[in-house]
Amino acid sequence: MKIKVINPNTTETMTQKIRAAAFEAAASGTEIIAVSPEAGPVSIEGHYDEAISALGVLDEVRRGEAAGCDGYIIACFGDPGLLAAREIARGPVIGIAEAAMHVASLIATGFSIVTTLPRTRVLSEHLVSAYGMTSKCRSVRPTALAVLDLEQKGSNARRIIVEECRRAIAEDHADCLLLGCAGMADLATEITEAVGVPVVDGVAAAVKLVECLIGLGLATSKAGGYAFPLAKSYRGTMAAFAPVRPQSR
Amino acid sequence: MKIKVINPNTTETMTQKIRAAAFEAAASGTEIIAVSPEAGPVSIEGHYDEAISALGVLDEVRRGEAAGCDGYIIACFGDPGLLAAREIARGPVIGIAEAAMHVASLIATGFSIVTTLPRTRVLSEHLVSAYGMTSKCRSVRPTALAVLDLEQKGSNARRIIVEECRRAIAEDHADCLLLGCAGMADLATEITEAVGVPVVDGVAAAVKLVECLIGLGLATSKAGGYAFPLAKSYRGTMAAFAPVRPQSR
Amino acid sequence: MKIKVINPNTTETMTQKIRAAAFEAAASGTEIIAVSPEAGPVSIEGHYDEAISALGVLDEVRRGEAAGCDGYIIACFGDPGLLAAREIARGPVIGIAEAAMHVASLIATGFSIVTTLPRTRVLSEHLVSAYGMTSKCRSVRPTALAVLDLEQKGSNARRIIVEECRRAIAEDHADCLLLGCAGMADLATEITEAVGVPVVDGVAAAVKLVECLIGLGLATSKAGGYAFPLAKSYRGTMAAFAPVRPQSR
Amino acid sequence: MKIKVINPNTTETMTQKIRAAAFEAAASGTEIIAVSPEAGPVSIEGHYDEAISALGVLDEVRRGEAAGCDGYIIACFGDPGLLAAREIARGPVIGIAEAAMHVASLIATGFSIVTTLPRTRVLSEHLVSAYGMTSKCRSVRPTALAVLDLEQKGSNARRIIVEECRRAIAEDHADCLLLGCAGMADLATEITEAVGVPVVDGVAAAVKLVECLIGLGLATSKAGGYAFPLAKSYRGTMAAFAPVRPQSR
Amino acid sequence: MKIKVINPNTTETMTQKIRAAAFEAAASGTEIIAVSPEAGPVSIEGHYDEAISALGVLDEVRRGEAAGCDGYIIACFGDPGLLAAREIARGPVIGIAEAAMHVASLIATGFSIVTTLPRTRVLSEHLVSAYGMTSKCRSVRPTALAVLDLEQKGSNARRIIVEECRRAIAEDHADCLLLGCAGMADLATEITEAVGVPVVDGVAAAVKLVECLIGLGLATSKAGGYAFPLAKSYRGTMAAFAPVRPQSR
Amino acid sequence: MKIKVINPNTTETMTQKIRAAAFEAAASGTEIIAVSPEAGPVSIEGHYDEAISALGVLDEVRRGEAAGCDGYIIACFGDPGLLAAREIARGPVIGIAEAAMHVASLIATGFSIVTTLPRTRVLSEHLVSAYGMTSKCRSVRPTALAVLDLEQKGSNARRIIVEECRRAIAEDHADCLLLGCAGMADLATEITEAVGVPVVDGVAAAVKLVECLIGLGLATSKAGGYAFPLAKSYRGTMAAFAPVRPQSR
Repeated sequence: MKIKVINPNTTETMTQKIRAAAFEAAASGTEIIAVSPEAGPVSIEGHYDEAISALGVLDEVRRGEAAGCDGYIIACFGDPGLLAAREIARGPVIGIAEAAMHVASLIATGFSIVTTLPRTRVLSEHLVSAYGMTSKCRSVRPTALAVLDLEQKGSNARRIIVEECRRAIAEDHADCLLLGCAGMADLATEITEAVGVPVVDGVAAAVKLVECLIGLGLATSKAGGYAFPLAKSYRGTMAAFAPVRPQSR
Repeated sequence: MKIKVINPNTTETMTQKIRAAAFEAAASGTEIIAVSPEAGPVSIEGHYDEAISALGVLDEVRRGEAAGCDGYIIACFGDPGLLAAREIARGPVIGIAEAAMHVASLIATGFSIVTTLPRTRVLSEHLVSAYGMTSKCRSVRPTALAVLDLEQKGSNARRIIVEECRRAIAEDHADCLLLGCAGMADLATEITEAVGVPVVDGVAAAVKLVECLIGLGLATSKAGGYAFPLAKSYRGTMAAFAPVRPQSR
Repeated sequence: MKIKVINPNTTETMTQKIRAAAFEAAASGTEIIAVSPEAGPVSIEGHYDEAISALGVLDEVRRGEAAGCDGYIIACFGDPGLLAAREIARGPVIGIAEAAMHVASLIATGFSIVTTLPRTRVLSEHLVSAYGMTSKCRSVRPTALAVLDLEQKGSNARRIIVEECRRAIAEDHADCLLLGCAGMADLATEITEAVGVPVVDGVAAAVKLVECLIGLGLATSKAGGYAFPLAKSYRGTMAAFAPVRPQSR
Repeated sequence: MKIKVINPNTTETMTQKIRAAAFEAAASGTEIIAVSPEAGPVSIEGHYDEAISALGVLDEVRRGEAAGCDGYIIACFGDPGLLAAREIARGPVIGIAEAAMHVASLIATGFSIVTTLPRTRVLSEHLVSAYGMTSKCRSVRPTALAVLDLEQKGSNARRIIVEECRRAIAEDHADCLLLGCAGMADLATEITEAVGVPVVDGVAAAVKLVECLIGLGLATSKAGGYAFPLAKSYRGTMAAFAPVRPQSR
Repeated sequence: MKIKVINPNTTETMTQKIRAAAFEAAASGTEIIAVSPEAGPVSIEGHYDEAISALGVLDEVRRGEAAGCDGYIIACFGDPGLLAAREIARGPVIGIAEAAMHVASLIATGFSIVTTLPRTRVLSEHLVSAYGMTSKCRSVRPTALAVLDLEQKGSNARRIIVEECRRAIAEDHADCLLLGCAGMADLATEITEAVGVPVVDGVAAAVKLVECLIGLGLATSKAGGYAFPLAKSYRGTMAAFAPVRPQSR
Repeated sequence: MKIKVINPNTTETMTQKIRAAAFEAAASGTEIIAVSPEAGPVSIEGHYDEAISALGVLDEVRRGEAAGCDGYIIACFGDPGLLAAREIARGPVIGIAEAAMHVASLIATGFSIVTTLPRTRVLSEHLVSAYGMTSKCRSVRPTALAVLDLEQKGSNARRIIVEECRRAIAEDHADCLLLGCAGMADLATEITEAVGVPVVDGVAAAVKLVECLIGLGLATSKAGGYAFPLAKSYRGTMAAFAPVRPQSR
């Protein structure tokens, strides 16, 4: 089984972290292909960054379909381009925010999301609502960390995240924590140890969920709102993105 | 006041219809600039079409900011790129689905949305939920019409839409109807006459709402989740989309 | 276009403030008629005050219909009598709480309401829920101010309101503020400057929304729950309120 | 214990029916005082009728307080003036829609409301939502019956109601039915027999609930949003309604 | 009328307290039978305790049916076995959490639940949601008290509960308080006096509500999801629990 | 990894079907232990059957803990005893209704549940709400099939289920179907072929989700409402169920 893990931003050190986390989570028969798009934001910290990054995500899914990938992961906690990607993929597509929330809801009574800048709070809140997790989510807790701060050696990011996790446990009664940025994928284990409650990293969670769906023989339903895009023209520089009729395998 | 009306798809006949509807709605002091992006889908009928079209929308907002536009309208009933556009615009940005729903909620006890293909049903449902209109929306009723069917002379589109509107009134108890596609902007008046309840066209509604916000001296709040994007690099073919620090006017 | 702005309470200094705010917001072609009912509470600070004030509101709408008014505004943040007024008016009727919330939801990710006495908190909460704004409203924050405190020269009302607004921004993550009393209509501009986020005054917002609806040729739908009241007898001192069949204009 | 049952409309034959239903439900030690206001609509079939009728309701509660009543029932399925009445009453106040819904939720998995004219549908829907009954209410089913049709001897009202009840059971899976008008209070028993599921009449239910609350020594909380109205002037013909400070008993 | 009050745990001192509270609440014609099951947990402080205790509850309902009981109360704030008990009982069955919440919603604008250990918080939250009380419940506030701490003479339980009640009033704006454990049934009166807002004890509330339902001639609907269990075999040690067809009385 | 699959009812032919479905879904390194409790109902078709069956489920989880099982599946679509089981298990516990709904929400825009007798409709509806799936669930569609009808050779169960699935697709716009009974576990593949949309069997889905959680190193959080039960006495025949302090492995 070949799973393509797409880091929607274009920062290679983060893609490496994501690749490592995905490799570690993957079953022995799973091939992980972790990529960044060629074009797009170096980090994603708002609706605008997300909207632009979706193009790169969709480009990588298109290439993945041509290369025979069996499933896809969108490795940014805003899940940019998720529903669009489902339309063009034959196999399952999962976002890491979605993966982390579903997994947390199976092992805990209420989770908190510890994330990066305050301006991303509303992005998480929208996903919590869209995924039906309103009664499961105890809080969204931004830190003062920018996404690329997580890439700095010697930063105090880990300490800041641990402190915010502890506040979520003490003040918001969370019994599970979600790391709200793919750039935190390397911290799940040590934060779990530091705070004493399960900490879910969405990258690993998404790998296992895609394996789960493929193992069940399930793919994205093509009978409703995730049907393949209708064949039509795309004009100008977007012509190459025009939907093509999927070929049976 | 200069309002830019962006048709997210690239079909010029539809842009003409939208331009006409916007002109008719605009106050005497309002300058309407109606455009299609140079690049993107000829019609928007799903999440994938929407995600790609958002790029064209954002490109037009960026140009609009440089040209001193005071407000923006996204003239596709899926409101593609709306939240992202709010981040980069100084003035207000409104989607036509959003405009139609807010207006309807001020004049009726419950509305129905009559839209195009069944595959777009879920797009409308997501917006209904995101805009807090769950208890106001009586039903979403797709027809068998593709978006470009609405551009065909001599089609029976008008008749089909009227019939679906009548069903929404009789079976779902709607006392207001929303036309779920910008390509129906020319039909609002005659459908109102045919069905006897208010019919809201989102293009006209959005023009008046943008005028309303600008008249109030209100612009998109830059104190929270719609703050200007952080300055950062965008790689590759997206480099030109990298956020620039807005200049004061 | 003739818009009647009804201050549901009977305190003339407040009506003057409301009139001034409405005048300032109105378009050049709009005639503003601002009134208080002859009978009713001097201020509205609870369900009982509201219920009694509704009679005065409806009386003014009836007179307005006879005088050919095109639309109505109910200028008390509890929107007393709103749905009843919609039944007897041909044109649109908007409450200032409703107006402020809809406008805020178009320019911000989340608003807080800064209001008067703690006992009115639940009035605002009920409206937030009825208008579908639950996920948009970050908090309702009463102050210790009675409605008529706002009419006292030299009171520290402005300072108290600014402090509460700042708490809403810092603690509740509001990026927009609503002034929860028509008696605060004169403060919106200076509070905006003091706190640095958009502050919406419902009176001005309602004027622009009524202009918007009338400009769209839309009136209250008479096809459902806002149909004209059925003709019937009203007994005793209420006989004069008995519904009359509306005459076409 | 003295319970005042207020029929918000001014049709004496309906008040007689309500009185009979209340008497039959009351415990031996309960004194029932059933009244109509002197002034107000002969029937209540919309928001406007309701708003006007609230004045009569509040007048009767005021008189009841002076006469030492221990609790109140508002005997119209729209519960007009309920929250306002709670502010001025020392003892409990219950509406018949509220009573019927709470009782139904204790004995059934889902109820339907069979009511009068279609225009009242939205009134019931608003109460269902306000009372937290959204997941319990299977449907609101208007009939073609006007309120005063129920007062006609020899009408086929009973047959029409039974048919609508049967549809609610068969099509909406209701296992309990609510009669959505105080004028149906005399029909509960025979409809129960006809349709074979519990049918709740709100008048009887409210009598027992008020007895229940008084028996528990509970009265309306005066510590929050139902506190006694603040003492203040009411102008003009409403002067007599000005809140007076309640005297301890 | 014979009401069986079932304390789901097996601690006799608590059953005595519950019996006393039920006796005090009961009308003169009501016979109260208060019991503990022979088998089960000495206290209930989590989902596991609850699930096991449900068996004892159902056993007591079965015995009650054989003995001709007219209604049942489940006297533990988690309402264990409530829906199952409704299937096997002819008369009404009410849980004390359910009773307290419904009663509170009739007299106050918002209540808080003061309960025992933090681990039970989520039990209360699930009931709040299931009973449609989300918008009425201001907070769930655990104390550090174990259920059996309430049985210790000379404990400071009363003081701790009063303090938590005061915090709920001051910080969460509750105007009514619910005691979240049947073991607090003896404290309602003195806590009411201490905190100055209505305090609802679920045991007393449930007694009056069962009297109310029986007085209305209403029993659990057998037309839907609470129909008598289908006759079938239960294997092994559970054979005695196999449903039997109810006999008409 | 050792996963115990517990069929809450005591019908061995159904356990065999469940075992076969679990085996087929399991990864090569997964050991499946499929059991029925010794005691309990032969089928589960209501709240009462469920409540009794929970005891057998918990007994099997206790044995499983002693035997070193790594995770558990509750193989009845009502998920009886799920939250209680989570308290006593070290590893993850998943119900098949929960599993099916989470999986469906990852591959489709809206699912329908095709289930057995109408009386179980409300059981499914409660789970849909508790799991946050309200906006994902298009309908719950009972058939006339009893659970044990599914065990009859030569029954027309398969045909009836297919028809109901087709109605869900055509009338409710479902693009995914859930089989609402563990006894349908053998039908998923052929129904998928018959109806052309993904059909999710909860047994298989739960196996893969437990593998997923264990693969992630995640277990039920013991920091909140799923903490191990407090050590205490259980009286009488339930003494053996008294919680024991878990031993570290």
